[in-house]
Amino acid sequence: MNDLIIRPATAEDLPAIVAMLADDPLGATRESPEDLTCYREAFALIVADPHQHLVVAERAGRTVGTLQLSVIPGLSRRGATRTVIEAVRIHADERGAGLGTDLIEWAVARSRELGADLVQLTSDRTRTDAHRFYERLGFTGSHLGFKMPLTEKV
Amino acid sequence: MNDLIIRPATAEDLPAIVAMLADDPLGATRESPEDLTCYREAFALIVADPHQHLVVAERAGRTVGTLQLSVIPGLSRRGATRTVIEAVRIHADERGAGLGTDLIEWAVARSRELGADLVQLTSDRTRTDAHRFYERLGFTGSHLGFKMPLTEKV
Repeated sequence: MNDLIIRPATAEDLPAIVAMLADDPLGATRESPEDLTCYREAFALIVADPHQHLVVAERAGRTVGTLQLSVIPGLSRRGATRTVIEAVRIHADERGAGLGTDLIEWAVARSRELGADLVQLTSDRTRTDAHRFYERLGFTGSHLGFKMPLTEKV
Repeated sequence: MNDLIIRPATAEDLPAIVAMLADDPLGATRESPEDLTCYREAFALIVADPHQHLVVAERAGRTVGTLQLSVIPGLSRRGATRTVIEAVRIHADERGAGLGTDLIEWAVARSRELGADLVQLTSDRTRTDAHRFYERLGFTGSHLGFKMPLTEKV
């Protein structure tokens, strides 16, 4: 079995990341992998912000997973810093093989290194398999997540 | 009725903000308003990050509300930028008087100014009144929010 490398994403990774974002029951309706312009613009914003950590998982030279970790300092909970995990995707060829666990465990360990007191994420209510997965990894589904679109993009 | 001012928080606002964080069924067990040291450290991190917007609502010279808005660029949803609303608190004297609506509507308008495509927040599953409030304001409770504490602080 080839070793897994988790490393910061580069602009060259964008086609593979966007393909993974789109290859998903919810992502299929939300993404436009045929035109990367909007993703390149967003990538520039991400790399310009030192508190954003967009990574890819690579195995044998292939991009097999991705997630984004964001660091948010705050006052509540005695001045707790939290990290937020977003946009977790596993390549179809790797699903069910433990890569999701590796990626989330990496994100939790990286959150500790970044000084976070709390790590959090939201998951669409229809993704019931994902909910069991996060609970097995030690997360508690204690909150409801509310969203409101502001533009035509989302 | 005195006009409401919503403005960036300063270090001088910390005692009033922490008092509001603590004056809450969940916050009462989580906060330590008798010692502001950890809050001052966290405040320094917040003001050092241009993507964090911690504000207070002021009426007739009194601090009556607070929230924090965080800007997170991302690749998913066609490179959508999202804002996250955290640590919303309304002074006990002002509850039920529409200030919560004013604050959230301000946060949504500010999110648009900041270029966000989506605004999101999580709310503890026990805060059922808050859930109805967010739905009335146009949010959809489409997600489950998962958290994992990493330190003794939270």
